Amino acid sequence: MPDSQASVDHQVPDEDPNVHHAWDNTLEPILTVKSGDVVRFDCRDATGGQLGPDATVTDVSAIDPELVHALTGPIAIEGAEPGDVLTVEILELEHEGWGYTIVPPGPLKLGLLFEAFDKPAIHVWEIEDGVCHFVDGIEVPLAPFPGVVGVAPAENGVFDTLSPRATGGNVDIKHLTAGSTISLPIAVENALFSIGDCHAAQGDGEVSGTGIEAPMSVTCRFELEPDRTIERPHLETDGPFTPTGRDERMIAVTGVESDLYDAAEAATCGLIDRLVDEYDLTREQAYILCSAIADLKINQVVHAPNSVVSAYLSTSIFPE
Amino acid sequence: MPDSQASVDHQVPDEDPNVHHAWDNTLEPILTVKSGDVVRFDCRDATGGQLGPDATVTDVSAIDPELVHALTGPIAIEGAEPGDVLTVEILELEHEGWGYTIVPPGPLKLGLLFEAFDKPAIHVWEIEDGVCHFVDGIEVPLAPFPGVVGVAPAENGVFDTLSPRATGGNVDIKHLTAGSTISLPIAVENALFSIGDCHAAQGDGEVSGTGIEAPMSVTCRFELEPDRTIERPHLETDGPFTPTGRDERMIAVTGVESDLYDAAEAATCGLIDRLVDEYDLTREQAYILCSAIADLKINQVVHAPNSVVSAYLSTSIFPE
Repeated sequence: MPDSQASVDHQVPDEDPNVHHAWDNTLEPILTVKSGDVVRFDCRDATGGQLGPDATVTDVSAIDPELVHALTGPIAIEGAEPGDVLTVEILELEHEGWGYTIVPPGPLKLGLLFEAFDKPAIHVWEIEDGVCHFVDGIEVPLAPFPGVVGVAPAENGVFDTLSPRATGGNVDIKHLTAGSTISLPIAVENALFSIGDCHAAQGDGEVSGTGIEAPMSVTCRFELEPDRTIERPHLETDGPFTPTGRDERMIAVTGVESDLYDAAEAATCGLIDRLVDEYDLTREQAYILCSAIADLKINQVVHAPNSVVSAYLSTSIFPE
Repeated sequence: MPDSQASVDHQVPDEDPNVHHAWDNTLEPILTVKSGDVVRFDCRDATGGQLGPDATVTDVSAIDPELVHALTGPIAIEGAEPGDVLTVEILELEHEGWGYTIVPPGPLKLGLLFEAFDKPAIHVWEIEDGVCHFVDGIEVPLAPFPGVVGVAPAENGVFDTLSPRATGGNVDIKHLTAGSTISLPIAVENALFSIGDCHAAQGDGEVSGTGIEAPMSVTCRFELEPDRTIERPHLETDGPFTPTGRDERMIAVTGVESDLYDAAEAATCGLIDRLVDEYDLTREQAYILCSAIADLKINQVVHAPNSVVSAYLSTSIFPE
């Protein structure tokens, strides 16, 4: 269970040199902690401060991808050895009252539908009282989590943070809310853990390439497990598994295609069409809303040549 | 909302010639109904009666794939034209107290992990009081739905029912529970709707290739929508979106791979390993349990080269 009253052993502000932009197992740790320690990390937004609460589409066009992500860390876990497991318990996340979701500029080729959406767009969300405000009275429930949690890779070199790996990174698992744990396979001495890219909410799939991106502070407890072995991340989580944490009416569109990626694309396109037709949103608004809250579920993946993916959206987000 | 008290206009028993085994737009309809009519279909299990409540692994090895699926239908919808939409509301499902999940025989190459699991296995579930009984006191909540709902394809020919298509078919969408609707694009005159392959429960992904397969009766209301156009199935559903219909602790394993299919495979393998290690199941039991209840979620699909799929399992199914 979440323990937001845990005493914090270490506080890490998001100031240089505590922020880095690539996975690199030769980075010097900014701090060394013991198993059991609680650390509070301040995290910049994914762009490292390039987009603020007044950001416009012009700012989106000017994003320097070299500064994405801004990660806080790395921190060393005392005694960690390759082959050990680092279990990170997410205790608390604190936002600053705002976040944004973008349609990325075409040249970045970011997002499931980047070919269809080549003009940038942005929605800046006001976050208050547990909800993120969209247009027309639509409200997305706040469900914050860190998009990037990872330890340094075994491979030597400087690696982009955008794509995740077995040691974690940009996994964008929206269920890593307070009270959840993620266990990561440690690949290098001292583990070298970093965190960032916090989201106020996100749909499974993160279809536009961004959730509700927001600067946040994240408090975590670290546990080193030298007697455990895993090949890939393991999770424990209480969700929420629906936007409001309870079963309620969802609309969905089903993609039936020979490739799961194509099925995900078809399902998302179909849901965007539905939002435009039935809820009077623009295509860009619909894409942004899907990225912030629509869930891609694999209905079945066992009857070739075709697989089935559906995109689900809770209807309780719309005003009555 | 479900309306199990709806008066049934037509009753279709699952006797020849009401059962067919392929999609074929030249099949003669067994019945013609009007928009608004309620029809109760008796449906054989997916194998068409080859596996009964006393089935053993020997019976699984002897399955004749030509008899899969056994679908009840087709029925004609009066006045339906290509381009119209058929909306099917699922009103009620009634099981017969048992179902089965199999690891298919290797030669069938059926299931996400068919290469790793080439020896057949079966679990016959007793279903009572809203739960399906597994081994060691493990209980999977009953959440019945039809795995196959579809209208005849536009293409002339005789098509296997195993793989789904845009007109529906073996979509295996576990959220098609009572109270849900699925809208299908009609491709031929009179629509020619068929249904079958009912499941008492299933995980998103249906990883072993079978849910909890069971003979059932399904009651549906049909609505013809000539003024609507869709390219692929549309859904409305109240879920359940978790096995018990409420948020609670789940364990999960995360696959990070360059292809969504490989990520789904890695996540499923990892969850099976966890069930064997932490819950003392055999590998075959773990695979069967995952197929019956574990959910594959696409965490993110937008940061190439790698995508992220996790396999989730509710821990409330285990005895305390």
